Amino acid sequence: MTIALDEQQAAAKAWFESLRDAICAEFEAIEAEAGSDARFERTPWDRVDPSGAPGGGGVRGVMKGRVFEKVGVNVSTVGGSFEGDFAKTIHGAGDDPRFFATGISLVAHMANPHVPAVHMNTRFLATTKRWFGGGADLNPPIPYDEDTADFHARLKAACDAHDPTHYPRFKQWADEYFYIPHRKVHRGVGGIFYDHLEGAFADNFAFTQDVGRAFLDIFPQIVRRRMAMPFTDADIARRNAWRGRYAEFNLVYDRGTLFGLKTGGNIDAILMSLPPVATWD
Amino acid sequence: MTIALDEQQAAAKAWFESLRDAICAEFEAIEAEAGSDARFERTPWDRVDPSGAPGGGGVRGVMKGRVFEKVGVNVSTVGGSFEGDFAKTIHGAGDDPRFFATGISLVAHMANPHVPAVHMNTRFLATTKRWFGGGADLNPPIPYDEDTADFHARLKAACDAHDPTHYPRFKQWADEYFYIPHRKVHRGVGGIFYDHLEGAFADNFAFTQDVGRAFLDIFPQIVRRRMAMPFTDADIARRNAWRGRYAEFNLVYDRGTLFGLKTGGNIDAILMSLPPVATWD
Repeated sequence: MTIALDEQQAAAKAWFESLRDAICAEFEAIEAEAGSDARFERTPWDRVDPSGAPGGGGVRGVMKGRVFEKVGVNVSTVGGSFEGDFAKTIHGAGDDPRFFATGISLVAHMANPHVPAVHMNTRFLATTKRWFGGGADLNPPIPYDEDTADFHARLKAACDAHDPTHYPRFKQWADEYFYIPHRKVHRGVGGIFYDHLEGAFADNFAFTQDVGRAFLDIFPQIVRRRMAMPFTDADIARRNAWRGRYAEFNLVYDRGTLFGLKTGGNIDAILMSLPPVATWD
Repeated sequence: MTIALDEQQAAAKAWFESLRDAICAEFEAIEAEAGSDARFERTPWDRVDPSGAPGGGGVRGVMKGRVFEKVGVNVSTVGGSFEGDFAKTIHGAGDDPRFFATGISLVAHMANPHVPAVHMNTRFLATTKRWFGGGADLNPPIPYDEDTADFHARLKAACDAHDPTHYPRFKQWADEYFYIPHRKVHRGVGGIFYDHLEGAFADNFAFTQDVGRAFLDIFPQIVRRRMAMPFTDADIARRNAWRGRYAEFNLVYDRGTLFGLKTGGNIDAILMSLPPVATWD
Protein backbone atom coordinates (compact mmCIF):
# COMPACT_ATOMS: atom_id res chain seq x y z
CA MET A 1 0.00 0.00 0.00
CA THR A 2 2.53 2.53 -1.17
CA ILE A 3 1.99 6.13 -0.17
CA ALA A 4 3.44 9.20 -1.86
CA LEU A 5 6.55 10.64 -0.16
CA ASP A 6 8.16 14.05 -0.39
CA GLU A 7 11.92 14.46 -0.49
CA GLN A 8 12.50 14.54 3.30
CA GLN A 9 10.20 11.57 3.87
CA ALA A 10 11.89 9.54 1.14
CA ALA A 11 15.35 10.37 2.50
CA ALA A 12 14.39 9.34 6.05
CA LYS A 13 12.79 6.10 4.83
CA ALA A 14 15.87 5.24 2.76
CA TRP A 15 18.12 5.82 5.77
CA PHE A 16 16.09 3.64 8.11
CA GLU A 17 16.09 0.85 5.52
CA SER A 18 19.84 1.09 4.93
CA LEU A 19 20.47 1.12 8.71
CA ARG A 20 18.28 -1.97 9.01
CA ASP A 21 20.30 -3.72 6.30
CA ALA A 22 23.61 -2.84 7.98
CA ILE A 23 22.39 -3.99 11.40
CA CYS A 24 21.00 -7.27 10.04
CA ALA A 25 24.26 -7.98 8.20
CA GLU A 26 26.30 -7.31 11.35
CA PHE A 27 24.06 -9.45 13.57
CA GLU A 28 24.18 -12.28 11.02
CA ALA A 29 27.98 -11.98 11.02
CA ILE A 30 27.99 -12.40 14.79
CA GLU A 31 25.86 -15.54 14.41
CA ALA A 32 28.33 -16.87 11.85
CA GLU A 33 31.21 -16.26 14.29
CA ALA A 34 29.31 -18.40 16.79
CA GLY A 35 29.01 -21.18 14.22
CA SER A 36 25.36 -20.57 13.39
CA ASP A 37 23.84 -19.94 9.98
CA ALA A 38 20.86 -18.05 11.38
CA ARG A 39 19.45 -15.37 9.09
CA PHE A 40 16.77 -12.71 9.40
CA GLU A 41 13.41 -13.69 8.01
CA ARG A 42 11.59 -10.70 6.54
CA THR A 43 7.80 -10.43 6.36
CA PRO A 44 6.19 -7.43 4.67
CA TRP A 45 2.86 -6.15 5.96
CA ASP A 46 0.40 -3.56 4.68
CA ARG A 47 -1.53 -0.94 6.60
CA VAL A 48 -4.98 0.23 5.53
CA ASP A 49 -5.85 3.69 6.79
CA PRO A 50 -9.16 3.94 8.70
CA SER A 51 -10.25 6.24 5.84
CA GLY A 52 -9.92 3.24 3.51
CA ALA A 53 -6.99 4.84 1.67
CA PRO A 54 -3.62 3.10 1.31
CA GLY A 55 -1.84 3.54 4.64
CA GLY A 56 1.67 2.32 3.92
CA GLY A 57 3.15 -0.65 5.72
CA GLY A 58 6.43 -2.15 6.74
CA VAL A 59 8.73 -5.11 6.89
CA ARG A 60 9.12 -7.16 10.04
CA GLY A 61 12.48 -8.89 10.37
CA VAL A 62 13.08 -11.64 12.90
CA MET A 63 16.13 -13.80 13.54
CA LYS A 64 16.31 -16.66 16.04
CA GLY A 65 19.91 -17.69 16.40
CA ARG A 66 22.52 -19.02 18.78
CA VAL A 67 23.66 -15.63 20.14
CA PHE A 68 20.48 -13.70 19.40
CA GLU A 69 17.81 -15.88 20.97
CA LYS A 70 15.25 -13.58 19.32
CA VAL A 71 15.86 -10.26 17.62
CA GLY A 72 13.27 -8.24 15.78
CA VAL A 73 14.04 -5.34 13.46
CA ASN A 74 11.05 -3.55 11.97
CA VAL A 75 10.99 -0.76 9.44
CA SER A 76 7.64 0.85 8.80
CA THR A 77 6.50 3.77 6.68
CA VAL A 78 2.89 4.70 7.26
CA GLY A 79 0.56 7.61 6.69
CA GLY A 80 -3.04 8.71 6.61
CA SER A 81 -5.31 10.42 9.12
CA PHE A 82 -5.56 9.95 12.89
CA GLU A 83 -9.10 9.16 13.98
CA GLY A 84 -11.24 11.43 16.15
CA ASP A 85 -9.91 12.86 19.39
CA PHE A 86 -6.70 10.88 19.08
CA ALA A 87 -5.32 13.50 16.69
CA LYS A 88 -5.47 16.08 19.48
CA THR A 89 -2.93 14.08 21.48
CA ILE A 90 -0.32 14.18 18.68
CA HIS A 91 2.12 17.05 18.19
CA GLY A 92 0.90 19.29 15.35
CA ALA A 93 -2.17 17.19 14.52
CA GLY A 94 -4.75 19.05 16.60
CA ASP A 95 -6.29 20.96 13.67
CA ASP A 96 -5.29 18.62 10.85
CA PRO A 97 -5.30 14.86 11.55
CA ARG A 98 -3.09 13.91 8.59
CA PHE A 99 0.20 12.26 9.49
CA PHE A 100 3.21 10.45 8.11
CA ALA A 101 5.69 8.31 10.04
CA THR A 102 8.73 6.30 9.06
CA GLY A 103 11.12 4.58 11.43
CA ILE A 104 13.15 1.63 12.55
CA SER A 105 12.57 -0.28 15.76
CA LEU A 106 14.74 -3.04 17.16
CA VAL A 107 14.64 -5.28 20.23
CA ALA A 108 17.18 -8.05 20.83
CA HIS A 109 16.84 -10.73 23.50
CA MET A 110 20.11 -12.61 23.87
CA ALA A 111 20.66 -16.27 24.72
CA ASN A 112 23.65 -15.75 27.04
CA PRO A 113 22.56 -13.99 30.27
CA HIS A 114 25.88 -12.10 30.29
CA VAL A 115 25.01 -10.40 27.01
CA PRO A 116 22.66 -7.44 27.49
CA ALA A 117 19.32 -7.22 25.73
CA VAL A 118 18.93 -3.96 23.84
CA HIS A 119 16.32 -1.69 22.35
CA MET A 120 16.85 0.93 19.63
CA ASN A 121 14.24 2.97 17.79
CA THR A 122 14.48 6.09 15.64
CA ARG A 123 11.72 7.71 13.62
CA PHE A 124 10.67 10.71 11.54
CA LEU A 125 7.15 12.07 11.90
CA ALA A 126 5.25 14.65 9.93
CA THR A 127 1.96 16.31 10.80
CA THR A 128 1.67 20.09 10.47
CA LYS A 129 5.04 19.79 12.28
CA ARG A 130 8.00 17.60 11.37
CA TRP A 131 10.29 16.00 13.89
CA PHE A 132 12.65 13.16 14.75
CA GLY A 133 12.55 11.00 17.85
CA GLY A 134 14.07 7.84 19.16
CA GLY A 135 16.53 6.36 21.56
CA ALA A 136 18.36 3.28 22.67
CA ASP A 137 18.70 1.58 26.03
CA LEU A 138 20.70 -1.35 27.34
CA ASN A 139 18.97 -4.08 29.35
CA PRO A 140 21.44 -6.50 30.91
CA PRO A 141 20.06 -9.35 33.04
CA ILE A 142 23.56 -9.37 34.57
CA PRO A 143 24.99 -5.83 34.35
CA TYR A 144 28.67 -5.03 33.79
CA ASP A 145 29.88 -1.52 34.55
CA GLU A 146 32.22 -1.63 31.55
CA ASP A 147 29.35 -2.32 29.14
CA THR A 148 27.16 0.37 30.66
CA ALA A 149 30.00 2.91 30.51
CA ASP A 150 30.91 2.08 26.91
CA PHE A 151 27.30 2.14 25.71
CA HIS A 152 26.69 5.54 27.29
CA ALA A 153 30.05 6.95 26.13
CA ARG A 154 29.32 6.03 22.52
CA LEU A 155 25.84 7.57 22.62
CA LYS A 156 27.29 10.65 24.34
CA ALA A 157 29.85 11.05 21.56
CA ALA A 158 27.07 10.89 18.95
CA CYS A 159 25.10 13.50 20.90
CA ASP A 160 28.07 15.81 21.62
CA ALA A 161 28.96 15.98 17.92
CA HIS A 162 25.66 17.79 17.39
CA ASP A 163 24.71 19.64 20.57
CA PRO A 164 26.38 19.55 24.01
CA THR A 165 22.96 19.74 25.68
CA HIS A 166 21.64 16.62 23.88
CA TYR A 167 23.26 13.89 25.99
CA PRO A 168 22.42 15.20 29.48
CA ARG A 169 18.82 15.89 28.44
CA PHE A 170 18.29 12.69 26.48
CA LYS A 171 19.98 10.50 29.11
CA GLN A 172 17.68 11.93 31.79
CA TRP A 173 14.67 11.45 29.53
CA ALA A 174 15.63 7.77 29.17
CA ASP A 175 16.04 7.44 32.94
CA GLU A 176 12.53 8.80 33.40
CA TYR A 177 10.96 6.83 30.55
CA PHE A 178 12.50 3.37 30.99
CA TYR A 179 11.26 3.05 34.55
CA ILE A 180 8.86 0.54 36.11
CA PRO A 181 6.93 2.56 38.72
CA HIS A 182 5.19 -0.40 40.36
CA ARG A 183 8.57 -2.07 40.96
CA LYS A 184 10.38 1.22 41.63
CA VAL A 185 13.25 0.06 39.40
CA HIS A 186 14.61 1.09 36.01
CA ARG A 187 14.10 -1.56 33.35
CA GLY A 188 17.81 -1.53 32.47
CA VAL A 189 20.90 0.65 32.71
CA GLY A 190 19.55 3.42 30.51
CA GLY A 191 20.71 5.12 27.34
CA ILE A 192 19.05 8.02 25.55
CA PHE A 193 15.47 8.95 24.63
CA TYR A 194 14.42 11.97 22.58
CA ASP A 195 11.32 13.25 20.83
CA HIS A 196 9.94 16.30 19.01
CA LEU A 197 13.38 17.21 17.69
CA GLU A 198 12.16 19.73 15.15
CA GLY A 199 13.45 22.76 13.28
CA ALA A 200 16.42 22.27 10.97
CA PHE A 201 15.66 19.01 9.12
CA ALA A 202 19.23 18.43 7.92
CA ASP A 203 20.76 18.78 11.39
CA ASN A 204 18.20 16.61 13.11
CA PHE A 205 18.37 13.98 10.39
CA ALA A 206 22.17 13.91 10.69
CA PHE A 207 21.87 13.48 14.47
CA THR A 208 19.35 10.66 14.10
CA GLN A 209 21.65 8.95 11.60
CA ASP A 210 24.53 9.26 14.08
CA VAL A 211 22.44 7.66 16.82
CA GLY A 212 21.88 4.69 14.51
CA ARG A 213 25.58 4.52 13.63
CA ALA A 214 26.57 4.72 17.32
CA PHE A 215 24.26 1.81 18.09
CA LEU A 216 25.66 -0.21 15.17
CA ASP A 217 29.19 0.51 16.41
CA ILE A 218 28.89 -0.19 20.14
CA PHE A 219 26.31 -2.93 20.60
CA PRO A 220 28.13 -5.55 18.49
CA GLN A 221 31.33 -4.80 20.47
CA ILE A 222 29.52 -5.53 23.73
CA VAL A 223 27.96 -8.69 22.30
CA ARG A 224 31.33 -10.04 21.13
CA ARG A 225 32.85 -9.22 24.54
CA ARG A 226 30.28 -11.36 26.38
CA MET A 227 28.88 -13.97 24.02
CA ALA A 228 31.34 -16.74 24.85
CA MET A 229 31.17 -16.34 28.63
CA PRO A 230 30.07 -19.51 30.43
CA PHE A 231 26.77 -19.34 32.27
CA THR A 232 24.80 -21.46 34.72
CA ASP A 233 21.19 -22.54 35.12
CA ALA A 234 20.94 -19.92 37.86
CA ASP A 235 22.03 -17.25 35.34
CA ILE A 236 19.28 -18.42 32.97
CA ALA A 237 16.73 -18.29 35.78
CA ARG A 238 17.89 -14.75 36.61
CA ARG A 239 17.63 -13.77 32.94
CA ASN A 240 14.10 -15.15 32.63
CA ALA A 241 12.85 -13.43 35.79
CA TRP A 242 14.44 -10.20 34.56
CA ARG A 243 12.59 -10.68 31.26
CA GLY A 244 9.33 -10.83 33.20
CA ARG A 245 9.95 -7.24 34.29
CA TYR A 246 10.80 -6.29 30.71
CA ALA A 247 7.45 -7.75 29.58
CA GLU A 248 5.67 -5.86 32.37
CA PHE A 249 7.20 -2.57 31.22
CA ASN A 250 6.30 -3.13 27.59
CA LEU A 251 2.74 -4.27 28.24
CA VAL A 252 1.81 -1.85 31.04
CA TYR A 253 3.74 1.34 30.22
CA ASP A 254 5.42 1.45 26.81
CA ARG A 255 3.64 4.10 24.77
CA GLY A 256 4.61 2.57 21.44
CA THR A 257 3.28 -0.85 22.39
CA LEU A 258 0.00 0.46 23.82
CA PHE A 259 -0.47 2.85 20.89
CA GLY A 260 -0.01 -0.04 18.49
CA LEU A 261 -2.24 -2.48 20.39
CA LYS A 262 -5.07 -0.04 20.88
CA THR A 263 -5.08 1.36 17.33
CA GLY A 264 -5.04 -1.92 15.44
CA GLY A 265 -1.41 -2.01 14.37
CA ASN A 266 0.38 -5.15 13.13
CA ILE A 267 0.30 -7.38 16.23
CA ASP A 268 3.33 -9.45 15.31
CA ALA A 269 5.41 -6.35 14.63
CA ILE A 270 4.29 -4.64 17.87
CA LEU A 271 4.80 -7.65 20.08
CA MET A 272 8.14 -8.72 18.62
CA SER A 273 9.58 -6.75 21.56
CA LEU A 274 8.34 -9.38 24.02
CA PRO A 275 10.94 -11.84 25.28
CA PRO A 276 10.95 -15.41 23.90
CA VAL A 277 10.46 -16.66 27.45
CA ALA A 278 9.73 -14.92 30.76
CA THR A 279 9.09 -16.16 34.27
CA TRP A 280 7.30 -14.83 37.33
CA ASP A 281 7.85 -16.08 40.87
CA MET B 1 -3.41 -2.28 60.30
CA THR B 2 -6.86 -3.37 61.45
CA ILE B 3 -9.81 -1.22 60.46
CA ALA B 4 -13.18 -1.10 62.16
CA LEU B 5 -15.90 -3.19 60.48
CA ASP B 6 -19.67 -3.06 60.71
CA GLU B 7 -21.77 -6.21 60.80
CA GLN B 8 -22.10 -6.67 57.01
CA GLN B 9 -18.42 -6.01 56.43
CA ALA B 10 -17.39 -8.43 59.15
CA ALA B 11 -19.71 -11.13 57.78
CA ALA B 12 -18.38 -10.73 54.25
CA LYS B 13 -14.76 -10.80 55.44
CA ALA B 14 -15.39 -13.93 57.52
CA TRP B 15 -16.96 -15.68 54.51
CA PHE B 16 -14.09 -14.86 52.16
CA GLU B 17 -11.59 -16.14 54.74
CA SER B 18 -13.52 -19.36 55.32
CA LEU B 19 -13.87 -19.91 51.56
CA ARG B 20 -10.13 -19.37 51.24
CA ASP B 21 -9.47 -21.98 53.94
CA ALA B 22 -11.78 -24.51 52.26
CA ILE B 23 -10.21 -23.95 48.85
CA CYS B 24 -6.65 -24.22 50.18
CA ALA B 25 -7.50 -27.46 52.01
CA GLU B 26 -9.04 -28.94 48.86
CA PHE B 27 -6.12 -27.93 46.65
CA GLU B 28 -3.64 -29.34 49.18
CA ALA B 29 -5.65 -32.58 49.19
CA ILE B 30 -5.29 -32.77 45.41
CA GLU B 31 -1.53 -32.33 45.77
CA ALA B 32 -1.48 -35.13 48.33
CA GLU B 33 -3.34 -37.40 45.88
CA ALA B 34 -0.58 -36.70 43.39
CA GLY B 35 2.04 -37.70 45.95
CA SER B 36 3.17 -34.19 46.77
CA ASP B 37 3.31 -32.56 50.18
CA ALA B 38 2.99 -29.03 48.79
CA ARG B 39 1.26 -26.57 51.10
CA PHE B 40 0.11 -22.96 50.81
CA GLU B 41 2.53 -20.44 52.22
CA ARG B 42 0.73 -17.45 53.69
CA THR B 43 2.23 -13.96 53.88
CA PRO B 44 0.31 -11.15 55.56
CA TRP B 45 0.70 -7.60 54.28
CA ASP B 46 -0.45 -4.23 55.59
CA ARG B 47 -1.91 -1.34 53.68
CA VAL B 48 -1.37 2.26 54.76
CA ASP B 49 -4.05 4.64 53.52
CA PRO B 50 -2.76 7.69 51.61
CA SER B 51 -4.28 9.71 54.47
CA GLY B 52 -1.77 8.04 56.77
CA ALA B 53 -4.50 6.16 58.64
CA PRO B 54 -4.50 2.37 58.98
CA GLY B 55 -5.76 1.00 55.65
CA GLY B 56 -6.28 -2.68 56.36
CA GLY B 57 -4.32 -5.34 54.55
CA GLY B 58 -4.49 -8.93 53.51
CA VAL B 59 -2.93 -12.34 53.35
CA ARG B 60 -1.30 -13.61 50.18
CA GLY B 61 -1.31 -17.38 49.86
CA VAL B 62 0.85 -19.19 47.31
CA MET B 63 1.37 -22.88 46.66
CA LYS B 64 3.83 -24.33 44.14
CA GLY B 65 3.11 -28.01 43.79
CA ARG B 66 3.08 -30.93 41.41
CA VAL B 67 -0.46 -30.39 40.05
CA PHE B 68 -0.72 -26.68 40.80
CA GLU B 69 2.45 -25.28 39.22
CA LYS B 70 1.58 -21.97 40.89
CA VAL B 71 -1.65 -21.00 42.59
CA GLY B 72 -2.26 -17.77 44.46
CA VAL B 73 -5.19 -17.14 46.79
CA ASN B 74 -5.41 -13.68 48.29
CA VAL B 75 -7.83 -12.34 50.83
CA SER B 76 -7.73 -8.64 51.47
CA THR B 77 -9.79 -6.29 53.61
CA VAL B 78 -8.95 -2.65 53.03
CA GLY B 79 -10.47 0.76 53.61
CA GLY B 80 -9.77 4.46 53.70
CA SER B 81 -10.27 7.25 51.20
CA PHE B 82 -9.75 7.28 47.43
CA GLU B 83 -7.40 10.04 46.33
CA GLY B 84 -8.44 13.00 44.16
CA ASP B 85 -10.34 12.47 40.94
CA PHE B 86 -10.05 8.72 41.23
CA ALA B 87 -13.02 8.71 43.64
CA LYS B 88 -15.26 10.01 40.85
CA THR B 89 -14.64 6.83 38.86
CA ILE B 90 -15.93 4.57 41.63
CA HIS B 91 -19.60 3.72 42.13
CA GLY B 92 -21.02 5.83 44.97
CA ALA B 93 -17.74 7.60 45.81
CA GLY B 94 -18.21 10.76 43.73
CA ASP B 95 -19.19 12.96 46.68
CA ASP B 96 -17.55 11.01 49.47
CA PRO B 97 -14.22 9.29 48.78
CA ARG B 98 -14.39 6.89 51.73
CA PHE B 99 -14.45 3.21 50.82
CA PHE B 100 -14.23 -0.30 52.20
CA ALA B 101 -13.46 -3.47 50.27
CA THR B 102 -13.08 -7.10 51.22
CA GLY B 103 -12.65 -10.01 48.85
CA ILE B 104 -10.96 -13.17 47.72
CA SER B 105 -9.02 -13.52 44.52
CA LEU B 106 -7.55 -16.70 43.09
CA VAL B 107 -5.54 -17.63 40.01
CA ALA B 108 -4.23 -21.16 39.40
CA HIS B 109 -1.69 -22.06 36.71
CA MET B 110 -1.52 -25.83 36.33
CA ALA B 111 1.49 -28.00 35.46
CA ASN B 112 -0.35 -30.40 33.14
CA PRO B 113 -1.43 -28.63 29.92
CA HIS B 114 -4.62 -30.71 29.89
CA VAL B 115 -5.74 -29.16 33.20
CA PRO B 116 -7.29 -25.71 32.73
CA ALA B 117 -5.96 -22.66 34.50
CA VAL B 118 -8.66 -20.83 36.40
CA HIS B 119 -9.50 -17.46 37.90
CA MET B 120 -12.06 -16.74 40.63
CA ASN B 121 -12.66 -13.49 42.48
CA THR B 122 -15.54 -12.28 44.65
CA ARG B 123 -15.70 -9.10 46.66
CA PHE B 124 -17.89 -6.79 48.75
CA LEU B 125 -17.46 -3.05 48.41
CA ALA B 126 -18.89 -0.18 50.40
CA THR B 127 -18.87 3.52 49.52
CA THR B 128 -22.08 5.48 49.89
CA LYS B 129 -23.37 2.37 48.06
CA ARG B 130 -22.79 -1.27 48.96
CA TRP B 131 -22.41 -4.02 46.42
CA PHE B 132 -20.98 -7.41 45.56
CA GLY B 133 -19.02 -8.30 42.46
CA GLY B 134 -16.91 -11.10 41.13
CA GLY B 135 -16.73 -13.96 38.73
CA ALA B 136 -14.84 -17.00 37.60
CA ASP B 137 -13.49 -18.08 34.23
CA LEU B 138 -11.80 -21.19 32.91
CA ASN B 139 -8.60 -20.89 30.87
CA PRO B 140 -7.58 -24.20 29.31
CA PRO B 141 -4.42 -24.27 27.17
CA ILE B 142 -6.00 -27.40 25.62
CA PRO B 143 -9.79 -27.04 25.86
CA TYR B 144 -12.20 -29.94 26.44
CA ASP B 145 -15.88 -29.40 25.68
CA GLU B 146 -16.85 -31.54 28.66
CA ASP B 147 -14.90 -29.32 31.09
CA THR B 148 -16.30 -26.13 29.59
CA ALA B 149 -19.85 -27.48 29.74
CA ASP B 150 -19.54 -28.68 33.33
CA PHE B 151 -17.93 -25.45 34.54
CA HIS B 152 -20.68 -23.34 32.97
CA ALA B 153 -23.46 -25.69 34.13
CA ARG B 154 -22.30 -25.48 37.74
CA LEU B 155 -22.09 -21.67 37.66
CA LYS B 156 -25.48 -21.55 35.95
CA ALA B 157 -26.99 -23.66 38.72
CA ALA B 158 -25.58 -21.25 41.33
CA CYS B 159 -27.02 -18.31 39.41
CA ASP B 160 -30.41 -19.88 38.70
CA ALA B 161 -30.97 -20.61 42.39
CA HIS B 162 -31.08 -16.83 42.93
CA ASP B 163 -32.31 -15.14 39.76
CA PRO B 164 -32.99 -16.64 36.32
CA THR B 165 -31.58 -13.52 34.65
CA HIS B 166 -28.20 -13.79 36.43
CA TYR B 167 -26.53 -16.46 34.31
CA PRO B 168 -27.31 -15.10 30.83
CA ARG B 169 -26.26 -11.60 31.89
CA PHE B 170 -23.18 -12.61 33.82
CA LYS B 171 -22.01 -15.10 31.18
CA GLN B 172 -22.24 -12.40 28.52
CA TRP B 173 -20.44 -9.96 30.78
CA ALA B 174 -17.59 -12.48 31.12
CA ASP B 175 -17.50 -12.99 27.34
CA GLU B 176 -17.11 -9.26 26.90
CA TYR B 177 -14.63 -8.76 29.73
CA PHE B 178 -12.26 -11.73 29.28
CA TYR B 179 -11.42 -10.76 25.72
CA ILE B 180 -8.08 -9.76 24.15
CA PRO B 181 -9.01 -7.11 21.56
CA HIS B 182 -5.59 -6.92 19.90
CA ARG B 183 -5.65 -10.70 19.30
CA LYS B 184 -9.40 -10.79 18.65
CA VAL B 185 -9.69 -13.88 20.86
CA HIS B 186 -11.21 -14.64 24.25
CA ARG B 187 -8.62 -15.40 26.88
CA GLY B 188 -10.33 -18.67 27.77
CA VAL B 189 -13.70 -20.44 27.56
CA GLY B 190 -15.54 -17.97 29.77
CA GLY B 191 -17.54 -18.21 32.93
CA ILE B 192 -19.38 -15.43 34.73
CA PHE B 193 -18.56 -11.84 35.66
CA TYR B 194 -20.75 -9.51 37.72
CA ASP B 195 -20.47 -6.18 39.47
CA HIS B 196 -22.53 -3.56 41.32
CA LEU B 197 -24.91 -6.21 42.64
CA GLU B 198 -26.58 -3.97 45.17
CA GLY B 199 -29.85 -3.73 47.07
CA ALA B 200 -30.77 -6.61 49.35
CA PHE B 201 -27.55 -7.42 51.20
CA ALA B 202 -28.65 -10.85 52.41
CA ASP B 203 -29.69 -12.05 48.93
CA ASN B 204 -26.58 -10.77 47.20
CA PHE B 205 -24.32 -12.13 49.91
CA ALA B 206 -26.00 -15.54 49.61
CA PHE B 207 -25.50 -15.45 45.84
CA THR B 208 -21.84 -14.52 46.19
CA GLN B 209 -21.37 -17.35 48.68
CA ASP B 210 -22.97 -19.76 46.21
CA VAL B 211 -20.59 -18.62 43.47
CA GLY B 212 -17.68 -19.49 45.76
CA ARG B 213 -19.23 -22.86 46.64
CA ALA B 214 -19.88 -23.63 42.95
CA PHE B 215 -16.23 -22.93 42.16
CA LEU B 216 -15.07 -25.10 45.07
CA ASP B 217 -17.32 -27.91 43.84
CA ILE B 218 -16.58 -27.95 40.11
CA PHE B 219 -12.96 -26.90 39.64
CA PRO B 220 -11.46 -29.73 41.72
CA GLN B 221 -13.59 -32.22 39.75
CA ILE B 222 -12.13 -30.94 36.50
CA VAL B 223 -8.60 -31.02 37.91
CA ARG B 224 -8.95 -34.62 39.08
CA ARG B 225 -10.39 -35.58 35.68
CA ARG B 226 -7.31 -34.30 33.82
CA MET B 227 -4.33 -34.25 36.17
CA ALA B 228 -3.00 -37.73 35.32
CA MET B 229 -3.28 -37.36 31.54
CA PRO B 230 0.05 -37.83 29.74
CA PHE B 231 1.40 -34.82 27.91
CA THR B 232 4.18 -34.03 25.45
CA ASP B 233 6.79 -31.30 25.05
CA ALA B 234 4.58 -29.87 22.31
CA ASP B 235 1.71 -29.64 24.83
CA ILE B 236 4.01 -27.73 27.21
CA ALA B 237 5.05 -25.38 24.40
CA ARG B 238 1.38 -24.80 23.59
CA ARG B 239 0.61 -24.13 27.27
CA ASN B 240 3.47 -21.62 27.58
CA ALA B 241 2.51 -19.71 24.42
CA TRP B 242 -1.08 -19.65 25.66
CA ARG B 243 0.19 -18.24 28.95
CA GLY B 244 1.83 -15.40 27.02
CA ARG B 245 -1.65 -14.31 25.94
CA TYR B 246 -2.89 -14.64 29.51
CA ALA B 247 -0.06 -12.32 30.66
CA GLU B 248 -0.94 -9.87 27.88
CA PHE B 249 -4.55 -9.73 29.04
CA ASN B 250 -3.64 -9.20 32.67
CA LEU B 251 -0.99 -6.54 32.03
CA VAL B 252 -2.73 -4.61 29.23
CA TYR B 253 -6.44 -4.87 30.05
CA ASP B 254 -7.29 -6.32 33.46
CA ARG B 255 -8.83 -3.54 35.52
CA GLY B 256 -7.92 -5.09 38.84
CA THR B 257 -4.26 -5.49 37.89
CA LEU B 258 -3.93 -1.98 36.47
CA PHE B 259 -5.85 -0.48 39.40
CA GLY B 260 -3.47 -2.21 41.79
CA LEU B 261 -0.28 -1.35 39.89
CA LYS B 262 -1.16 2.30 39.43
CA THR B 263 -2.40 2.91 42.97
CA GLY B 264 0.51 1.39 44.85
CA GLY B 265 -1.06 -1.89 45.92
CA ASN B 266 0.90 -4.90 47.14
CA ILE B 267 2.92 -5.86 44.03
CA ASP B 268 3.37 -9.49 44.94
CA ALA B 269 -0.34 -9.92 45.61
CA ILE B 270 -1.35 -8.13 42.40
CA LEU B 271 1.08 -9.96 40.16
CA MET B 272 0.52 -13.42 41.61
CA SER B 273 -1.90 -13.79 38.69
CA LEU B 274 0.99 -13.88 36.20
CA PRO B 275 2.00 -17.32 34.95
CA PRO B 276 5.17 -18.97 36.30
CA VAL B 277 6.50 -19.09 32.75
CA ALA B 278 5.27 -17.64 29.45
CA THR B 279 6.66 -17.62 25.93
CA TRP B 280 6.29 -15.41 22.89
CA ASP B 281 7.15 -16.45 19.33
